[in-house]
Amino acid sequence: MPRAWRVERAVQSNGVKRLLVAWALGAGVMVAGQTARQVSLIVVGRFVITQNAAHQMLSPGAVAIDGSTIVGVDTPEAIARTFVASDTIAANDDIVLPGLINTHTHAPMVMYRGLADDLALMDWLNRYIFPAEAKTVSPDMVRIGTRLAALEMIESGTTTFADMYYFEEEIARATREAGLRGILGETILRFPVADAKTPAEALARAERFIKAFKNDRLIVPAVAPHAMYTNDAATLMAAADLGRKYQVPVLIHLAETEDEWRMAREQHHMTPTAYLESIGFWGPRTLAAHGVWVDDADIAVLKRHGVGVSHNPESNMKLASGTAPVSKYVRANVALGLGTDGAASNNDLDMFEAMRQASFLAKHATRDSTALPAQTALDLGTIGGARALGMDGQIGSLEVGKRADLICVSVAAARQTPLYDPVSHLIYTTRGDDVRTTIVDGAVLMRDRTIKTLDRATVIADANRLAQKVRDAVK
Amino acid sequence: MPRAWRVERAVQSNGVKRLLVAWALGAGVMVAGQTARQVSLIVVGRFVITQNAAHQMLSPGAVAIDGSTIVGVDTPEAIARTFVASDTIAANDDIVLPGLINTHTHAPMVMYRGLADDLALMDWLNRYIFPAEAKTVSPDMVRIGTRLAALEMIESGTTTFADMYYFEEEIARATREAGLRGILGETILRFPVADAKTPAEALARAERFIKAFKNDRLIVPAVAPHAMYTNDAATLMAAADLGRKYQVPVLIHLAETEDEWRMAREQHHMTPTAYLESIGFWGPRTLAAHGVWVDDADIAVLKRHGVGVSHNPESNMKLASGTAPVSKYVRANVALGLGTDGAASNNDLDMFEAMRQASFLAKHATRDSTALPAQTALDLGTIGGARALGMDGQIGSLEVGKRADLICVSVAAARQTPLYDPVSHLIYTTRGDDVRTTIVDGAVLMRDRTIKTLDRATVIADANRLAQKVRDAVK
Repeated sequence: MPRAWRVERAVQSNGVKRLLVAWALGAGVMVAGQTARQVSLIVVGRFVITQNAAHQMLSPGAVAIDGSTIVGVDTPEAIARTFVASDTIAANDDIVLPGLINTHTHAPMVMYRGLADDLALMDWLNRYIFPAEAKTVSPDMVRIGTRLAALEMIESGTTTFADMYYFEEEIARATREAGLRGILGETILRFPVADAKTPAEALARAERFIKAFKNDRLIVPAVAPHAMYTNDAATLMAAADLGRKYQVPVLIHLAETEDEWRMAREQHHMTPTAYLESIGFWGPRTLAAHGVWVDDADIAVLKRHGVGVSHNPESNMKLASGTAPVSKYVRANVALGLGTDGAASNNDLDMFEAMRQASFLAKHATRDSTALPAQTALDLGTIGGARALGMDGQIGSLEVGKRADLICVSVAAARQTPLYDPVSHLIYTTRGDDVRTTIVDGAVLMRDRTIKTLDRATVIADANRLAQKVRDAVK
Repeated sequence: MPRAWRVERAVQSNGVKRLLVAWALGAGVMVAGQTARQVSLIVVGRFVITQNAAHQMLSPGAVAIDGSTIVGVDTPEAIARTFVASDTIAANDDIVLPGLINTHTHAPMVMYRGLADDLALMDWLNRYIFPAEAKTVSPDMVRIGTRLAALEMIESGTTTFADMYYFEEEIARATREAGLRGILGETILRFPVADAKTPAEALARAERFIKAFKNDRLIVPAVAPHAMYTNDAATLMAAADLGRKYQVPVLIHLAETEDEWRMAREQHHMTPTAYLESIGFWGPRTLAAHGVWVDDADIAVLKRHGVGVSHNPESNMKLASGTAPVSKYVRANVALGLGTDGAASNNDLDMFEAMRQASFLAKHATRDSTALPAQTALDLGTIGGARALGMDGQIGSLEVGKRADLICVSVAAARQTPLYDPVSHLIYTTRGDDVRTTIVDGAVLMRDRTIKTLDRATVIADANRLAQKVRDAVK
């Protein structure tokens, strides 16, 4: 009875061995007259944290996957009674949870991580980031950078990311090859940039990009007007209209810095959020990154229009941007997710760090140690991010019918010993490096730390080669 | 010429192979008529970050160690000309730097990590930590907990730690066996605790402890009056006098919470810092942990008396204690180090996280992205901690004559690619898990992630067994 034994082996260290052996010997693959359903993959974990509405946790638990879809979430015994799988991942000592969702990054900017730190924002941009981008952003750079970012994301348990950059079609191809899910926004700016000389050219590029990737299995194409202070009203609305026409997300930076807030007040006598409402920009598929400089009325605006918000605690701290009112967003039930921002300002893409920092920063900022507890931080990094992206029907939790995006996380480190509460451990002691296995859309991208979709050595060698050009660019 | 080849192998990937081969063939072990000096260990790194006063960095670099002492820090070629070693660690791709110094923790409290989080401080203490301590603190628990903490510290690159807990002689023995350097303070409290019913008993215990470990190679015994609000003036001064009599450090919590500050104002009409000055408590061997609720006059008091201060950014954020004025301490040139605090309130002992958080929090708190740059954060985690402990003559930098406490850190992860600035990478992208090799007092405690002084599986199994008692204690 090899099919049964496969599942049995998967759970044998969880103390249910005898039960499953009994089942395998007694019932075979027939249960109550029904043949067990053949599926592609079963993942067994010491804990399965579903992140469903009831915050159900199974210990031990198992997830059955058929193709790209979750078809069962239950105890290992129940899963073994119902399904037989071609492959089983026996994460017997691990926590299994939904893949993490990074709602704001600029993937290729991993190429600029650590290039310059600890500077005033305008110094950093004008002396390092803009010159480096002017001289090095190209289809090649974007492809090499995205592969490196994808490697880092797969290795640290991110399964979906929202991106804003240039040559987004290259990012889309590299993301698809790596097997990650991407909500990828072609950037629209009033300045000439590497892939478009004018906003009109950028909008045309964005439309071509959206058409090319509209029905992709993994890629959700989007349009990304950079911010309200880097585009005029006509361009902002053209971008919003493009999003509506094709029913794709519209990604924008919102109220990140005090300067942006001051500029909006001076030029429009409104907050950035109110200004964007006044021109009719907001809609349910818009995702606003940062949302630091917002007042209660702004939060009501974002809630009213169903705007998703991406909170980026590490970037906001490192760049000294200010404190996003996260507890207020949570209380107002705004669709809130977490982001790392680009690795140039963070300096990594580790969503475990983002979850921990969200909790630490909220407690610190409100002087309340009960603020943003571990469970809420985990919600923001999973189902909250899915809601912010308008994708909570497909991803963000382990539930039957959803896409099979999940990760297995080791809790065996000395730093994670002993374990009293798996959710606390995920937020307060786990790093991206503890992720053992990453699955997106039912495909295993990393298994026990071995990457399946990228040639690790080549990705890193290419990035190191390109880094020399970046060094030369800012000499 | 095997001795020469040993060094040659160590540096061969650093592009100096031909030079060293030429040296090995041409000059043998005789240079300018002098025989190269036999030493115990040479460590070669892609970068050697010395943390000396000039912040010198060698790339590549090498450190020669004889017994417990650093005898050479130079280029690999210069070291190879001067020394031959019984053993060579070829950390060709790694950063070699001084071991990290954790200036405030309660090592055995790793046993309570994640037991309860996200509570108000008094709830957390009264419902979880105090009941758990009342029922589980024992020589056995302290030994098992310290071994687990030592394992975590060795694995994350901490080579020296300052501790305040109970049964400190057990902590001392476990620390010595693990091979770490410890500044270990027996706690004095006005309440009955596990190892002493009265402050007088605790003081007698502390004195016995100091005598027993006064001349240890690795252990610096200390006395640790818990805080100004948990001891009366007579006890505080008895503890300070004990420190002076034996010339050992005196460790105390200072101005951690607003409650402590308010209590001091109400009872003594002074700040906690001023009150401790008024009774004559402060001295150059006192180390004050936290120092959150201090004003400019308090900082002047601490500077005047040469008090070391331990900043604990993660604990302060997670417990919502407030914001220590770190930039002010740095400007006032107070001897400032970093601590993790106990793992019950952090939740780990990773000093890389403490350094990153110190930088992030200072930038956030001052709204200045240039505040506490990476180099300063690294200073606080190494030589700054040594100064705070009054040990900067012996540890905290890689300099000839100092104790050989150093670590080798990998920068090969995708998350660390590319590398433009090694100091930035140490602070903004490195985790404790990137530490490959940990050396204390010339002894290799971990080599390429293999622990030499502890039986890893036993340490973790013992902790997991004890965890059940902790669970029962708070049921």
